[in-house]
Amino acid sequence: MQLIDALSSTGLRRIEAASFVSPTAIPPMAGSDEVMARIERVPGVVYSALVPNVRGAERALEAKADEIEVVVSASETHNRKNVNRSVDESIAGAGELIELSHDADVAAEAIVSTAFGCPYEGDIAPSRVAEVARRLADAGADRLSFGDTTGMATPRRVDDLLDALAAAGLDTDAVGLHFHNTRGTALANVLAGLERGVTRYDASIGGLGGCPYAPGASGNAVTEDLVHMLEDMQIDTGVDLDELLACATLAQDIVGRELPSALLHAGARLRRYAS
Amino acid sequence: MQLIDALSSTGLRRIEAASFVSPTAIPPMAGSDEVMARIERVPGVVYSALVPNVRGAERALEAKADEIEVVVSASETHNRKNVNRSVDESIAGAGELIELSHDADVAAEAIVSTAFGCPYEGDIAPSRVAEVARRLADAGADRLSFGDTTGMATPRRVDDLLDALAAAGLDTDAVGLHFHNTRGTALANVLAGLERGVTRYDASIGGLGGCPYAPGASGNAVTEDLVHMLEDMQIDTGVDLDELLACATLAQDIVGRELPSALLHAGARLRRYAS
Repeated sequence: MQLIDALSSTGLRRIEAASFVSPTAIPPMAGSDEVMARIERVPGVVYSALVPNVRGAERALEAKADEIEVVVSASETHNRKNVNRSVDESIAGAGELIELSHDADVAAEAIVSTAFGCPYEGDIAPSRVAEVARRLADAGADRLSFGDTTGMATPRRVDDLLDALAAAGLDTDAVGLHFHNTRGTALANVLAGLERGVTRYDASIGGLGGCPYAPGASGNAVTEDLVHMLEDMQIDTGVDLDELLACATLAQDIVGRELPSALLHAGARLRRYAS
Repeated sequence: MQLIDALSSTGLRRIEAASFVSPTAIPPMAGSDEVMARIERVPGVVYSALVPNVRGAERALEAKADEIEVVVSASETHNRKNVNRSVDESIAGAGELIELSHDADVAAEAIVSTAFGCPYEGDIAPSRVAEVARRLADAGADRLSFGDTTGMATPRRVDDLLDALAAAGLDTDAVGLHFHNTRGTALANVLAGLERGVTRYDASIGGLGGCPYAPGASGNAVTEDLVHMLEDMQIDTGVDLDELLACATLAQDIVGRELPSALLHAGARLRRYAS
């Protein structure tokens, strides 16, 4: 709650605030209803919630999430590991959740995970990822996002995927990209995406994160490292870096371990030292 | 010695093997003569050595370094902190060292440090960096390299510097870039350089490193993370990633602390997990 409220005042316009998965399946995600009820909503900030099934969607809508997120893996094996369903079944399920959210006048984002490779199957053909995305768009998804679940993306794979999405008739400028820095390439991948016109990137404060169903997954791109790079590239993010760094410090205090944020350790580039 | 010998068999074509600074000034760098004498030279691999002054150059040439490296900071303050001389004095000194090496038929690389910013002065104008580089080229330097000493570079600063170098009549395709990952941008900066035709990048195995005279400096770009990204971008580095990872493990064992290498922890992208 405290962290979300702090993030709300940095200028970020979108915060994934909760995940309505089963509290018995992933105990750290319990309490989402309470989180959504207690955060202070800042006008202009979208508070989204991840939902895995109808029960989760109902809870998210009841909790007044501004947007729901549904996830389907492009990898059959990863999808089965994750939700014990085939990709076809998950796409059908996502369609139901999108309908539920639309009935409540809430937008739905569809996220294709393992979009740059799968820890079980290895490479996933970009055309396969594009097909899953196409079907989710056809099912009514308002926005599409692509997750590099275990950090297998490199700049040319970003290009390859965007090519495949364009070939499938999808608007690549409108997609979101979600990188993990598992193999150090997250910011290089963002640069590749920027050069192709993508403006929406997920990141996590301090580099918090991981994935209980993806062995080897480490945190997302680090929000403050990303904002720092973008701002120095004269891209106006609207985010206050100092406030973001205060949030990263808070996040580190909450989890009680050192987070992978580079900025948290080094400070912004114009940090001076006495001469 | 053991680490350099291991690196020699990975396919790397150039290894900075020693630094002939004063052993009293920087004790960890003592023993360079012995290192150069005892390494097994692999044909085709260039073993270079950093030299700060005439005594260092003499020692490096005596030790049969294949190439010497001289460093001048683009920042007056950083240069004074580092070697207690003005930039003008250092450029003149570099000229002497280049001459000494040429007399011995040994090539000399000139490195402009704090080329993307200085921890004392802040931003350094790219035109200033280009001027220092131009003067070092005029002094006979065979190759030019630009150091992001404290990790202040971002992709647009790479572009800005290359623009300034081109404006100064320098061949940007031939330069080397030396990034530190202090603020997470090293691989993004490499991508920016690649797109401009730069093919030569420094990196350190495991991400070893830092700089005793640059507060806040962390390790270089990580060799194995860089090779991993480049290879996946279908750029043939000629380097064997598995052997490189073995070197990184060795480096970590030698220093006895966890190194910042991402690959060392995550493994290559196609590493599989049992499903």
